[in-house]
Amino acid sequence: MALERLELLSEHGCFGGVQRFYKHFSVNQIGLPMRFALFLPPQALAGQKVPLLTYLAGLTCTEETATMKAGAQRMAAQLGLALLFPDTSPRNSGIDGEDHHWDFGVGAGFYLDATEHPWAGHWQMESYLLQDLIPGVVAEFGLDGDRLGITGHSMGGHGALTLALRHPGVFRSLSAFAPICAPTKCPWGHKAFLGYLGQDESTWATHDAGLLMAAQQTAPYPGGILIDQGLADKFLTEQLYPEAFEAACAQAGQPLTLRRHAGYDHGYYFISSFIDDHLRHHAQALA
Amino acid sequence: MALERLELLSEHGCFGGVQRFYKHFSVNQIGLPMRFALFLPPQALAGQKVPLLTYLAGLTCTEETATMKAGAQRMAAQLGLALLFPDTSPRNSGIDGEDHHWDFGVGAGFYLDATEHPWAGHWQMESYLLQDLIPGVVAEFGLDGDRLGITGHSMGGHGALTLALRHPGVFRSLSAFAPICAPTKCPWGHKAFLGYLGQDESTWATHDAGLLMAAQQTAPYPGGILIDQGLADKFLTEQLYPEAFEAACAQAGQPLTLRRHAGYDHGYYFISSFIDDHLRHHAQALA
Repeated sequence: MALERLELLSEHGCFGGVQRFYKHFSVNQIGLPMRFALFLPPQALAGQKVPLLTYLAGLTCTEETATMKAGAQRMAAQLGLALLFPDTSPRNSGIDGEDHHWDFGVGAGFYLDATEHPWAGHWQMESYLLQDLIPGVVAEFGLDGDRLGITGHSMGGHGALTLALRHPGVFRSLSAFAPICAPTKCPWGHKAFLGYLGQDESTWATHDAGLLMAAQQTAPYPGGILIDQGLADKFLTEQLYPEAFEAACAQAGQPLTLRRHAGYDHGYYFISSFIDDHLRHHAQALA
Repeated sequence: MALERLELLSEHGCFGGVQRFYKHFSVNQIGLPMRFALFLPPQALAGQKVPLLTYLAGLTCTEETATMKAGAQRMAAQLGLALLFPDTSPRNSGIDGEDHHWDFGVGAGFYLDATEHPWAGHWQMESYLLQDLIPGVVAEFGLDGDRLGITGHSMGGHGALTLALRHPGVFRSLSAFAPICAPTKCPWGHKAFLGYLGQDESTWATHDAGLLMAAQQTAPYPGGILIDQGLADKFLTEQLYPEAFEAACAQAGQPLTLRRHAGYDHGYYFISSFIDDHLRHHAQALA
């Protein structure tokens, strides 16, 4: 498993480790060049086989957004966690109108494999992450593929929760910031699922974190899942439905720490305020 | 001293404090609307009169750049420091070609008062900061005007060093990241000083941190000045001249901690890696 045509775009010293930006070509999944950012903590530079936490970003973001704004590197350096920041969709695919919507198409891959024309050709973000990028990064940089964690924000929180539940055993730790918890019930989810997956709503349910959790026979993360949600988040009521995931966790016996924070909104000042707790949550589960 | 036509643009919960963005009208200095960002730590929200650290950003930046990228709020919240992030120049002044250069005009005010046409009308950043913005923010938000610190990056490092030395007694603590230390010797400085101050180089010398420090009779900051400089900074040799400031401090008996960091460049991954040390430096001097 190698990353094809891997190209280092830039490299920055950062908290004793190194923050890098890369381009590679996703031959089998996306069929296009893709970018990602990777933080290697000082422990990795010293030769240790460190765990990897993947952070999935939200609508309109790129691999640079959280890398630049979340303030995650400080604690990751302290804990010895590598951080992977993928892009949020394919780009420059040649699909007419791919960037006409901020919540669909470019910047809005929803971390699933599209089945509908014209998106099915390139919009294969789930397979890209699971079969190409994450194993490729683990192999290329000598990381510990048995110690993978996943987190994300908003659409990326949906991605983290659903990918973790759809691929049991791959990710040993799970958290999210203001995730879209019930995409089958919200406008962002409806638009994405109709466009990428088509009209058969039974396929939608297999990409809905709340419904996936409700269907679990035993708790998939007995050590607990951590979710932070701001109460001044303007998307909370219409788009996010944390209460649906909370109810599903209760039903499945899944321990969940869902923290609701007065005065915090949907942006990166919220995320950076709580990122350290998430990094500690993952480091503990991946120890 | 009040901030005229003060308007809150946005507000974000952040590390128990609040990160705000404002617009106001600088009546007497700039003659235009100006923007700034202000972080109030939890101690200020609880009614304490806290010290204020002003962070001056570099070329092309706005009030949002360091606010978003430096990761300063976490430690500022812990230490009880308010943070002020001014913009780097006037904007939309009507001056023809004001934004034709990335290193002169818009985004490049150099924190001085221009005397040359057409810049003299609005480009009055030194008076703006000293007579309008900083005292206005202190008064408006009930901060401790006797406990002011200043720092900055690159052009903003030049601003921090020169404003601190040109206005004795105003700022009780001083630090900088990769500052332009000898603008009379470097291309950025030549271009700015010629355009803003004219051909008389004797006025240039009064805005050169190294020359200002060399002229001090006693150490203006007996508690020490902190400067961090990356050794992978592509501007180091041609533009920054930290050795000139270092020599001037030695000559003036000014204690200076100048740390040179292998592998760090000119960007915000460098700044965020060392911002906590700067915040501690200021908090200690402002205690």
